[in-house]
Amino acid sequence: MKKFVNDPQKYVAEMLTGIALANPDTLTYVPDYNLIMRSDAPNPNKVSIVQGSGSGHEPAHVMVVGKGMLDAACPGDVFAAPPMDYVYETTKLVASPKGVLLLVNNYTGDKMAFEMAEEMSAADGILVKTLFIDDDVSVKDSTYTVGRRGVAGNFFVMKAVGAAAENGADLDELIRIGEKVNSVTRTMGMALTSCTPPAKGSPLFELGEDEMEMGVGIHGEPGRRRAKLASANEIVDELLEAVVSDLPFESGDRVALMINGLGGTPISELYILYGRAHAQLAERGITVGRSYVGEYCTSLDMAGASLTLVKLDDEIEALLAAPAEVAIRIF
Amino acid sequence: MKKFVNDPQKYVAEMLTGIALANPDTLTYVPDYNLIMRSDAPNPNKVSIVQGSGSGHEPAHVMVVGKGMLDAACPGDVFAAPPMDYVYETTKLVASPKGVLLLVNNYTGDKMAFEMAEEMSAADGILVKTLFIDDDVSVKDSTYTVGRRGVAGNFFVMKAVGAAAENGADLDELIRIGEKVNSVTRTMGMALTSCTPPAKGSPLFELGEDEMEMGVGIHGEPGRRRAKLASANEIVDELLEAVVSDLPFESGDRVALMINGLGGTPISELYILYGRAHAQLAERGITVGRSYVGEYCTSLDMAGASLTLVKLDDEIEALLAAPAEVAIRIF
Repeated sequence: MKKFVNDPQKYVAEMLTGIALANPDTLTYVPDYNLIMRSDAPNPNKVSIVQGSGSGHEPAHVMVVGKGMLDAACPGDVFAAPPMDYVYETTKLVASPKGVLLLVNNYTGDKMAFEMAEEMSAADGILVKTLFIDDDVSVKDSTYTVGRRGVAGNFFVMKAVGAAAENGADLDELIRIGEKVNSVTRTMGMALTSCTPPAKGSPLFELGEDEMEMGVGIHGEPGRRRAKLASANEIVDELLEAVVSDLPFESGDRVALMINGLGGTPISELYILYGRAHAQLAERGITVGRSYVGEYCTSLDMAGASLTLVKLDDEIEALLAAPAEVAIRIF
Repeated sequence: MKKFVNDPQKYVAEMLTGIALANPDTLTYVPDYNLIMRSDAPNPNKVSIVQGSGSGHEPAHVMVVGKGMLDAACPGDVFAAPPMDYVYETTKLVASPKGVLLLVNNYTGDKMAFEMAEEMSAADGILVKTLFIDDDVSVKDSTYTVGRRGVAGNFFVMKAVGAAAENGADLDELIRIGEKVNSVTRTMGMALTSCTPPAKGSPLFELGEDEMEMGVGIHGEPGRRRAKLASANEIVDELLEAVVSDLPFESGDRVALMINGLGGTPISELYILYGRAHAQLAERGITVGRSYVGEYCTSLDMAGASLTLVKLDDEIEALLAAPAEVAIRIF
């Protein structure tokens, strides 16, 4: 296993320690609940926003806690849902009089943990609601999911509700905005290689030297088909057709376009994919209003990428353009 | 080869096309000279700053063109210096009455191209100077270099002179600032795996399943030693000792700490390295004033990392903290 690791059991804890040390003025790590939170949360004048999921998808979600994004992220171990009681304790810690919004990618384990935590928090008198994200068009029902999976498109939901919460929106308004963004967001991903979970020490699945997995899930779950390795353009065209035809996106639409790397793919390659996707959208009469190229929701060290489109309107575009400050930054 | 690629000969051109499409309001791609430049350059009220090097190190340097950073980046093909005449044409294109500063990482090929371009531009009456960066402590003289190599620490030189140029500093002042930052910046890197250049289609060098290369160059050049794979903490401790003892950094110093990924390492692992480095610096009485975790200067898809320290003073810290806007961003 070619990874930077000490004890695989401490992989997540050591990563969270690093995040907190790098952001001493803004973030707090609470080891008891595996939790990264804004040091100034809860803010009584805003709804607190929490996202949880398995670890291994960084920067999602522990590195996007901060002003204008999440108030807390409550990760599980690598590719494992957070324990229900951790989600419950997180909810209590960030509970604001304006309420708590729990964001969950639609995976069965996460869904169970968050729904139980919501129930327990509500029984304590906390105003709390949960919003599920299911942007992945590749398969309906999969290894770990009933219904569509939630993947990289969740970034746009987090960004939009994060900005609206900062502006003082109430919980019902955030649910409205989050559901709206989710309803116009579509993603499909694909893998060139497997990933290697630190505790397993070997690749999660096998993919031949001349093979790729189209529609892969962010835990390496099977997608639509295993295919012969294709060119960058052919891959983009297949992802784009699947995503565009699903909503569908149509001539005259203005969109946000994200090319998300899955962890092992260099950003030079992501821009090659981006260029093709942008040009193909123009051919279809679809205008890219906002561009996102980089790593947003990864699968450890998997080589691969996903393509996300969001149909923009003035409300969504303004929320996406609002300022935010998180651990992931170059400067 | 598990890469997103169409024609390997068009790898760089397609990447640059993608960068320009994703940043239509701010960046211009000039195919004739393989050039990415600020659309508003040259600005007659500031010195223009140009960096060139081989491609394959992205985001360096083509993705850090923008306000407060570079005015243009002039890359060669993958791991190849830009042609001298491209550097010359780039210099002419961005020439400002306040002058042009050429930044070059100390590799022999790049040095030759930029020195000749400087001479030719000066003969045309352009006010131009060149600054070499040589932050890599791992080896003196190497496969492609006489003297120390310039690696990820060049980010800090670019950021400091970029901010100062935006503030109106003249060319001599930028040389002073750049030399000062370079003189207090030290880096060492290491590789867990090789990288695969698209045109080669196979790994650049061989590294056994239980081996790592300590002090590797950003083109896979040999470093200090090939060693048995070690834990994350052991690796950090060796890099840190090499870097700290070189300047040396001393108890009471305030530093910027960068953990730079080499392209194939997920950011979760970089934060594990960061946490250890931060804690070990604290043990030595050295305070981290600014943190940088992510990919700054990569080696295609190489798994590995480098560690950079910059000794801060008020002047350098203010320049590093100044706002800047480049292609690499999450929002």
